[in-house]
Amino acid sequence: MTSTSPAALRVGMVGYAFMGAMHSHAWRTAPRFFDLPLQPELAVLAGRDAAAVKTAADTFGWRDTETDWRALIERDDVDLIDICTPGNTHAEIAIAALEAGKHVLCEKPLANSVEEAERMTAAAREAEARGVFAMCGFSYRRTPALTLARRLVEQGRLGTVRHVRAQYLQDWLSDETSPMTWRLDREKSGSGALGDIGAHSIDAAQYVTGLQISGVSGLLNTFVHERPLSGARSGLGGSGAADSGMGQVTVDDAAIFSARFDGGAIGAFEATRFALGRKNSMRLEVNGTLGSLAFDFEHMNSLEFYDGTQPQETAGFSTINVTEPVHPYTGNWWPAGHGLGYEHGFTHQVVDLVQAIADARTPSPSFEDALQVQKVLRAVERSSAEDAGWQHV
Amino acid sequence: MTSTSPAALRVGMVGYAFMGAMHSHAWRTAPRFFDLPLQPELAVLAGRDAAAVKTAADTFGWRDTETDWRALIERDDVDLIDICTPGNTHAEIAIAALEAGKHVLCEKPLANSVEEAERMTAAAREAEARGVFAMCGFSYRRTPALTLARRLVEQGRLGTVRHVRAQYLQDWLSDETSPMTWRLDREKSGSGALGDIGAHSIDAAQYVTGLQISGVSGLLNTFVHERPLSGARSGLGGSGAADSGMGQVTVDDAAIFSARFDGGAIGAFEATRFALGRKNSMRLEVNGTLGSLAFDFEHMNSLEFYDGTQPQETAGFSTINVTEPVHPYTGNWWPAGHGLGYEHGFTHQVVDLVQAIADARTPSPSFEDALQVQKVLRAVERSSAEDAGWQHV
Amino acid sequence: MTSTSPAALRVGMVGYAFMGAMHSHAWRTAPRFFDLPLQPELAVLAGRDAAAVKTAADTFGWRDTETDWRALIERDDVDLIDICTPGNTHAEIAIAALEAGKHVLCEKPLANSVEEAERMTAAAREAEARGVFAMCGFSYRRTPALTLARRLVEQGRLGTVRHVRAQYLQDWLSDETSPMTWRLDREKSGSGALGDIGAHSIDAAQYVTGLQISGVSGLLNTFVHERPLSGARSGLGGSGAADSGMGQVTVDDAAIFSARFDGGAIGAFEATRFALGRKNSMRLEVNGTLGSLAFDFEHMNSLEFYDGTQPQETAGFSTINVTEPVHPYTGNWWPAGHGLGYEHGFTHQVVDLVQAIADARTPSPSFEDALQVQKVLRAVERSSAEDAGWQHV
Amino acid sequence: MTSTSPAALRVGMVGYAFMGAMHSHAWRTAPRFFDLPLQPELAVLAGRDAAAVKTAADTFGWRDTETDWRALIERDDVDLIDICTPGNTHAEIAIAALEAGKHVLCEKPLANSVEEAERMTAAAREAEARGVFAMCGFSYRRTPALTLARRLVEQGRLGTVRHVRAQYLQDWLSDETSPMTWRLDREKSGSGALGDIGAHSIDAAQYVTGLQISGVSGLLNTFVHERPLSGARSGLGGSGAADSGMGQVTVDDAAIFSARFDGGAIGAFEATRFALGRKNSMRLEVNGTLGSLAFDFEHMNSLEFYDGTQPQETAGFSTINVTEPVHPYTGNWWPAGHGLGYEHGFTHQVVDLVQAIADARTPSPSFEDALQVQKVLRAVERSSAEDAGWQHV
Repeated sequence: MTSTSPAALRVGMVGYAFMGAMHSHAWRTAPRFFDLPLQPELAVLAGRDAAAVKTAADTFGWRDTETDWRALIERDDVDLIDICTPGNTHAEIAIAALEAGKHVLCEKPLANSVEEAERMTAAAREAEARGVFAMCGFSYRRTPALTLARRLVEQGRLGTVRHVRAQYLQDWLSDETSPMTWRLDREKSGSGALGDIGAHSIDAAQYVTGLQISGVSGLLNTFVHERPLSGARSGLGGSGAADSGMGQVTVDDAAIFSARFDGGAIGAFEATRFALGRKNSMRLEVNGTLGSLAFDFEHMNSLEFYDGTQPQETAGFSTINVTEPVHPYTGNWWPAGHGLGYEHGFTHQVVDLVQAIADARTPSPSFEDALQVQKVLRAVERSSAEDAGWQHV
Repeated sequence: MTSTSPAALRVGMVGYAFMGAMHSHAWRTAPRFFDLPLQPELAVLAGRDAAAVKTAADTFGWRDTETDWRALIERDDVDLIDICTPGNTHAEIAIAALEAGKHVLCEKPLANSVEEAERMTAAAREAEARGVFAMCGFSYRRTPALTLARRLVEQGRLGTVRHVRAQYLQDWLSDETSPMTWRLDREKSGSGALGDIGAHSIDAAQYVTGLQISGVSGLLNTFVHERPLSGARSGLGGSGAADSGMGQVTVDDAAIFSARFDGGAIGAFEATRFALGRKNSMRLEVNGTLGSLAFDFEHMNSLEFYDGTQPQETAGFSTINVTEPVHPYTGNWWPAGHGLGYEHGFTHQVVDLVQAIADARTPSPSFEDALQVQKVLRAVERSSAEDAGWQHV
Repeated sequence: MTSTSPAALRVGMVGYAFMGAMHSHAWRTAPRFFDLPLQPELAVLAGRDAAAVKTAADTFGWRDTETDWRALIERDDVDLIDICTPGNTHAEIAIAALEAGKHVLCEKPLANSVEEAERMTAAAREAEARGVFAMCGFSYRRTPALTLARRLVEQGRLGTVRHVRAQYLQDWLSDETSPMTWRLDREKSGSGALGDIGAHSIDAAQYVTGLQISGVSGLLNTFVHERPLSGARSGLGGSGAADSGMGQVTVDDAAIFSARFDGGAIGAFEATRFALGRKNSMRLEVNGTLGSLAFDFEHMNSLEFYDGTQPQETAGFSTINVTEPVHPYTGNWWPAGHGLGYEHGFTHQVVDLVQAIADARTPSPSFEDALQVQKVLRAVERSSAEDAGWQHV
Repeated sequence: MTSTSPAALRVGMVGYAFMGAMHSHAWRTAPRFFDLPLQPELAVLAGRDAAAVKTAADTFGWRDTETDWRALIERDDVDLIDICTPGNTHAEIAIAALEAGKHVLCEKPLANSVEEAERMTAAAREAEARGVFAMCGFSYRRTPALTLARRLVEQGRLGTVRHVRAQYLQDWLSDETSPMTWRLDREKSGSGALGDIGAHSIDAAQYVTGLQISGVSGLLNTFVHERPLSGARSGLGGSGAADSGMGQVTVDDAAIFSARFDGGAIGAFEATRFALGRKNSMRLEVNGTLGSLAFDFEHMNSLEFYDGTQPQETAGFSTINVTEPVHPYTGNWWPAGHGLGYEHGFTHQVVDLVQAIADARTPSPSFEDALQVQKVLRAVERSSAEDAGWQHV
């Protein structure tokens, strides 16, 4: 909503499945509702299958295509690389892009291993010295209710945090006949429920509380060990395979872990895709000495807040309808009460990334923030492999 | 998501406030997620203030501008006129557009009087004979949960409808110092809470049940009779006036009415902008002989359904998370549980309108459907003026 | 929980169906949890069928029985008459009891007509001059959440009340084959949903707001006009008849009315036993200039409170768990969060009645309060009979 | 509600604090609403302080008192001993009572150690051979919604259980100045949140699923290590001490543990008294291959049930209002929708115990069931002491 034309920010994106559609929408929509210092352009979409990437580019509104991400990175008319591919490719693409002087937005989890994540973080640090910035796409942070949660903790409304309980419950694998996907193949996805959705809970918990997890004890479990190779069910990632027969599930179906945070808080975490009836129930509850917060993504437009400093007669969890002009991001959208959806977190992510680039500031979450999440994931896996024994992060 | 290029549908829009921003988003977004038979183009935006309309066009992404809606209608490169202005201008613009052979999408309420609405309906009927179509923008119908509600009633899951209870509760006028806007001026808006939000409840009730309201008894009330002329509060419509002093509120602040439907059902309706704490609580509950439905827009991604044919041991209101591929519209968006927002109803409206035009079918809600709503509004006003006595619609 | 023995308050009760069981429990339980100035004794139970009343007395714990309420009233060893019979008998019994110097607790609605209620109120006024007191059993007032609601209004936390919306939704008559009962016979019950459950809503609305209804417009409807005479379904009142064939329903199945209160507030009321899936959903919502309240008996241990004076960032409806020691009545029961049930309102009613008698104060709700409810009921019926035209109360 | 007089069951109770008041109410109320084969009598109340026990007996309605539980056990006019004292006294009293031929109802947790619990279980087994029965008071099982949950699992409505998540959240110790009580003294209470409330979660999880926990990994935490010795806050157990100064908290304030069940299910448990704003939120969620259940004691009259065999279009968590005549226990109380409270679980416990004694059947939960809970508690404590390493139960 600016009057003078801002400079362009030409985006090149790798990958065009579920996250590709979403990121395209975010890049396209952000400048229509937010006054951005740089004008994003959907410049080039890259993918291996020339015909498929062309169709996706038309559908999503990209100007040009490439079939090799390396060619994309070499182009002069691209300023930022948006990585929407499976986790096993993140490190290579992101490091190459940063070295080529392109800003990077990388989907979560940052990588499939701590080692990769460390190399990416090092690359991001070096790039920053050259004015090139990197962000990891933990988009839930930008759900207005969770951004407000962070704000309330920062304001001291919760006092000292004592308890975190975080559950991420889905059910799309509950059906044993649901087919194999790359998300169930350890080589591609790195991890199962833990890395895919548990990573969101870890990031959200650390972000909202401002505390880091220092140790964990974990239990990983696989309920269904093989699945049919063909067929497809949802947009969460078909295998693309035409094979028949069964594929081996090599990741966890569910993860439970307890945690200690710096400062004495303790946490109870759970992530699963087998909680029949829960569609995308990403829940976070935080109890402090002065107040408490509770959130469930299935009611993403509201935040529950208990203000322990109120007189007991009227104290209770307040359902804040996080759609007022005073709330994070929401003033740029619709009138109060006219709720937002899942995609708005991604649009807000783009808004903040563009602003950080223009300001030459480290975007949040940085690769370093994402590396810390990766270390927690590794500690949970190690603990699970060693009879749940405590693992320092 | 088609491979061959569909013909263009060049849109000209009048008005660029809250609804203008929303409609722009809908036109821009629809073809990215739905396979449309015609390709919408944001061609021309019209508004009286040349500079303001130019800025709006840049922000929202319109190619060209006009400062006179008559000039817009005369253009050869526009196929459809989208009317987002106050109700007192609807009839003139819509009738002229239809006569000029342009399809029309007109924001609700259709007009400020039954007489205007009847002329518009006649114009739409004539236009249809020439292959030109008109739709009224009761967008709530396209909230997936309400579309599903309609589907369940059609399937007979509720049996015979007995009760409708519809409340539309907002609070943005609860503060007496909130300034005067055109929505509080009878000349421009035609009506207050009744026509602005009560109209949505009437349309939704008639749409979901498939029944028409045949008679009403109404009570209108104005709590705050004058308001400051300057200042602005929300996107729901600033007055634009630079005056100081007080303006007279000439519309209702709240409306309560009881209704009878064809077929024996009865209804209890309420619309207000003074329900402190309720932001956009558009609630609809329907009880039939076999089942019941309940909806609240503050939880727009879910529908409550009571199936009275289930054994009593486990019967209860089910919270359907209306985000599955089997649900209306939602399969084109995100995976299950990743909720939609307010704007999606507008995108779906555009999708259905484009499809109807391509199929040469009357879009729904037609101007005739909207005229029926207008008649209910008039009956409520007449009843209120005559001591709540019964008024046939 | 007193150490010195208080004087006895010997209770005689007429009727032993659903309300009889409930009142017995209240009289028996109150002195175990509250320190009462008079010690209630379950002295004599009266009913027409000698064997049945004897069995009921054994089951409920009454010392003695009578088969004629007149004999009960004449007994010297009874101090208070508790009337749990159908409405058509209330006036005669209550007036006789008061004249005989017995305190009276009379179930609601006070009577089947305003004329009877007026005579009862006159009798109560005269009795009071003699130190004899009467209360009408609108027990919902003593649900702690509603008592707290009243307290918050009294404290000014809502400011000036603008809106009342009250729904009382049940579904036990939704099944057309559900049998005839005395509650559907106008001669015995006086009225249908309106008087049976709508009366509770009227009393609760007037009690919580402290305002009186001054005028109404009503719509009564009967969905099912005849029902089988035999069979029984629930404790809400079997007919006891052994007849076969069909009985005529001579009361309303549902009532909708709008209301004006003294002071400018408006109200929307609905009462029905045909809201399939709603079991005992007695809902009350009040919006004022400073705050709002919402209650639903299906969540009887909580009250929703919106404090409009809070900063907008954290304002929201708070769910107050009304079980803290600071809340009405609850400190005498269990620790916080260990909820109460339906019967506790009746125990609290007895507690307050005993206290009022000991203090020689008019109990609340007095017969005069109940007469006002009766007048509202009559006005609704008259309005319904006259095409919904406005009726002053 | 029986016609012939059943034989008496004379109860002697030890302890008269919170649980004493509750058990008294249950014994007094059960025969008024349920047709019992034996007629409970509140015969003798025992406690060390003669004056206090006399006052309590008057308040609660006990016929006689004793100041030594041994004297109570020796009385011929007592048939059953109800133990409502702290956990460190359970073993001695229960074993002596059983040996003296008295039936026993013992509050939970069964004991403060597995060793004690094993001796009690052995005594119960021996007593049973002599027709003397023992039950442990895990009263939550008799909340109708949880009894219904068990029934649905038994009917196969959930299929194979995969996930259990159980949280028991209170906040009464969140305030650091809240005083010391016996519940925080390891010698008397044996354990903190884990044994006091976590034990309920363990019992409920095993009861509802019909599965036993086979191994755990646990984390115990104490947030506040010392508390003022004087003062009192709630009915949850004052220390009675007149001392000043600080007392040492020697138990856990919060417990988190993961579990494996026989049959492959996994569980996530948490118990705390520091979840600010949560009053008595005893939550249980179970996900199976065919369905899911969710319960929260703050909404004790409802059970959420997801039936995965329903068509996806209308599948959703149903809120079952567990107050219908077809539901467990509720047909003996009020009409549908007129909810029950915390105490009803205790009344149902008495009903089932009396029935089991009359039938000469082992009551449920037996001491053996409670011993299994004790073993889980011990395993959690051991795991916590050993760096969260896995402990077989």
